[in-house]
Amino acid sequence: MRKEIKKLFAYLACFAVKFLKMKTALSALGRRTAPPAISWLIKTSLSRPKLISLAAGFTDNATLPTEISRQLLNEILRSPKTGRPALQYGISAGENDLRQLTATHLQKLDGGHDRAHRPEHTIITGGSQQLLYMTLEALCDEGDIVLVEDPTYFVFLSILQSRNLQARGVKLERDGIDLVHLEKVLTQLQKSGELRRVKALYLVTYFQNPTGATTSLAKKRAVLKLLKKFERAAGHPLYLIEDAAYRELSFAPVAAVYDRRSSAHIRRSQTAVTNFCEAPSTALTLPGARERVIYAGTYSKPFATGVRVGFGILPEPVYTAVLRIKGNHDFGTANLLQHLLARALATRLYDRHVAKIRKNYARKAAMMKQALAKHFPASVEIWEAGGGLYFWARLPKGIATGVKSKVFQAALKADVLYVPGELCYADDPARPKPDHEMRISFGSASDENIREGIKRLGAVLKKFI
Amino acid sequence: MRKEIKKLFAYLACFAVKFLKMKTALSALGRRTAPPAISWLIKTSLSRPKLISLAAGFTDNATLPTEISRQLLNEILRSPKTGRPALQYGISAGENDLRQLTATHLQKLDGGHDRAHRPEHTIITGGSQQLLYMTLEALCDEGDIVLVEDPTYFVFLSILQSRNLQARGVKLERDGIDLVHLEKVLTQLQKSGELRRVKALYLVTYFQNPTGATTSLAKKRAVLKLLKKFERAAGHPLYLIEDAAYRELSFAPVAAVYDRRSSAHIRRSQTAVTNFCEAPSTALTLPGARERVIYAGTYSKPFATGVRVGFGILPEPVYTAVLRIKGNHDFGTANLLQHLLARALATRLYDRHVAKIRKNYARKAAMMKQALAKHFPASVEIWEAGGGLYFWARLPKGIATGVKSKVFQAALKADVLYVPGELCYADDPARPKPDHEMRISFGSASDENIREGIKRLGAVLKKFI
Repeated sequence: MRKEIKKLFAYLACFAVKFLKMKTALSALGRRTAPPAISWLIKTSLSRPKLISLAAGFTDNATLPTEISRQLLNEILRSPKTGRPALQYGISAGENDLRQLTATHLQKLDGGHDRAHRPEHTIITGGSQQLLYMTLEALCDEGDIVLVEDPTYFVFLSILQSRNLQARGVKLERDGIDLVHLEKVLTQLQKSGELRRVKALYLVTYFQNPTGATTSLAKKRAVLKLLKKFERAAGHPLYLIEDAAYRELSFAPVAAVYDRRSSAHIRRSQTAVTNFCEAPSTALTLPGARERVIYAGTYSKPFATGVRVGFGILPEPVYTAVLRIKGNHDFGTANLLQHLLARALATRLYDRHVAKIRKNYARKAAMMKQALAKHFPASVEIWEAGGGLYFWARLPKGIATGVKSKVFQAALKADVLYVPGELCYADDPARPKPDHEMRISFGSASDENIREGIKRLGAVLKKFI
Repeated sequence: MRKEIKKLFAYLACFAVKFLKMKTALSALGRRTAPPAISWLIKTSLSRPKLISLAAGFTDNATLPTEISRQLLNEILRSPKTGRPALQYGISAGENDLRQLTATHLQKLDGGHDRAHRPEHTIITGGSQQLLYMTLEALCDEGDIVLVEDPTYFVFLSILQSRNLQARGVKLERDGIDLVHLEKVLTQLQKSGELRRVKALYLVTYFQNPTGATTSLAKKRAVLKLLKKFERAAGHPLYLIEDAAYRELSFAPVAAVYDRRSSAHIRRSQTAVTNFCEAPSTALTLPGARERVIYAGTYSKPFATGVRVGFGILPEPVYTAVLRIKGNHDFGTANLLQHLLARALATRLYDRHVAKIRKNYARKAAMMKQALAKHFPASVEIWEAGGGLYFWARLPKGIATGVKSKVFQAALKADVLYVPGELCYADDPARPKPDHEMRISFGSASDENIREGIKRLGAVLKKFI
């Protein structure tokens, strides 16, 4: 009886709402923010237990550093002297130790360069995602424009959508952004009077999500020059946001960078190191970096995605603005995670772990490459990554891969999932959205699932090509 | 020589910027966001090593759960089966286990009530601060109004300032908000046509920061009714944001709530439990809660501020909006922290820890009470808290306590720091900002510093009163 009354009241409440024609109290942002692009994919994959997902951007489960983390946390928490600071509040910018270690680590990766690798301009964040969010808060008003790669990281596009910002796509080549097209886009924006709304160019510079492409240092240098050239017309600085989330996941053998040589030595053997790394230096090493490069990095992917510690190095006045915004978001990332990473870096267990997972991802990528060669039609263009978690497959034009396409539906029927390329393209009125590509991930799939998944996907493609 | 050239270039760059009269690229929000209200206090306290700070909102260092955390993290990370999920990505809403345990925990604290304590409407966040930030993003457009207590939590005011929202202060009594004044404020806003801009009332309901006041359940009930009454004129729902950050830091002896009885039993002995707790139930227990109460809670303060896990329980459509926003902020709080807290709750080591720190804070509060009685002039009105971390001292009107006041400067000279009351008041054109109060914290200060700090502060006050 009580339940019945409750039901009646709920019904009456519903009726009252309709009768009074109450509007939602949500803000424009609250109403506008769309569900994540891949939430449907995740749901689908959860509801089909036999499905092989080559869609997830998860890292490899088997190589997560459980033992290293256990050991280091034990050490940290064993004594009150080190344990208590790890369990106490810190400051918004993050622990001084970790900021110093982060700057040093980046210097090392950049062959000893220290041009813009400054701990005092470093902020520790909840993954690099939070840094990207706060950076856009600090830079962009509604309607402002951010240039992005075509295609690019889809969660970055989600932020733009939510905050009512415009994206303009710039063509992407195997070695990074198409400079001729970038200049063309900037020129067009200048002509249309929209350049004043452009605030930044966003590049995922290493083993890009979704294509696996890596931007050469020469291109980064040219990009900074080009942005500088258009600043006068824009009337304000044009920033390069370098998202280096996958920077450390190179498949090249780890050598000089992770050995025990002093940074002085590394500095002397700079060229050799860069070659060993097979990943170009960051834009932080370039002239103008201290004023114009916003660097987003993370320990999530190379160490553990469950630890979620990212960081940014930013020029003024963006740094101070982001720091204040961080004060309002959460006044600092959890100290326990920061202490864990600081100790991992200081003991070099971090380096050892990264060396290990690089080998593992290289092995998995090679396996996927082999499977692709065996099962995919020859007319599918594969962008083979030199690191990261993804391969990019480009089907002949006209063969759509989107969630409503025949290919996607057939793949689903064959119990294999990929990320449709169209999800990675910005809404840009200047071009139709390409829809004939797919992101295929070897990050979290098991060896067997990589082989079987590609086999299934290949069989599907052969029906349509 | 190279350095000289670098300097010259830097100088030329500076000159070029000035010559071109470049504007900043920062957004309105980026330009507007003020430094944290207490950043100056923190800096001051760091630069004076002999200073006794009764200003910090830090928790007690000595009772941080280093050993419990070590033990639990060891258990979690010892086996790959439990270790790997803790080090992997999760979902934006947070771990299902922790959401379930959180809902159950709140039900238990609320004497078995389960009206709006729903895991499927629970989101795990980076402290409750992040929940507050995202809630305001979801609800408020620029210029919208949020009603707050006079005084209130100053970082909440910082969010309002940063996002260009308006605050209206409602008088605070020892048992919570002044209902007559709340109705008056709402009526005035209706008359001035501003009610349509009001989205929510924000209450810190337990051992409030900064006053220590606790809102009675009767007042929460009346508040919900009053908000409901004005909804038709507002044209949209008016939410009650209940910030219960200090809820578990009651000084009352821990008994029934933390014992091993089943929740069925607790339900039967509801009244007794509530009395034991000496903290009223949350607004989640009230009629209308499922539609109008946004509950912000945290494990940071009761467990460890370095673990920074908070949570929210929200009604639709706010829940979905906040979830999507969280997807853009960081797509989920670090799993390792979530697993740690889930295990602490499940093993009841959490409950044992909370019982321990409650005793400790009760002891420290009693010590501060004694010192206040001994050293403070009788004309200073003390709001003695029944929990939390703060006492609130109200000086006779006319004796200012702000950072530029004689009292504050004299206190600084005597090497003791407090939070000036004026920092906790919203900018509200309807009243001048009270400036004769101070927040005094016993949270992180040592026993000796509590006694000595109050002694110094008392001596300062006696000069002016």
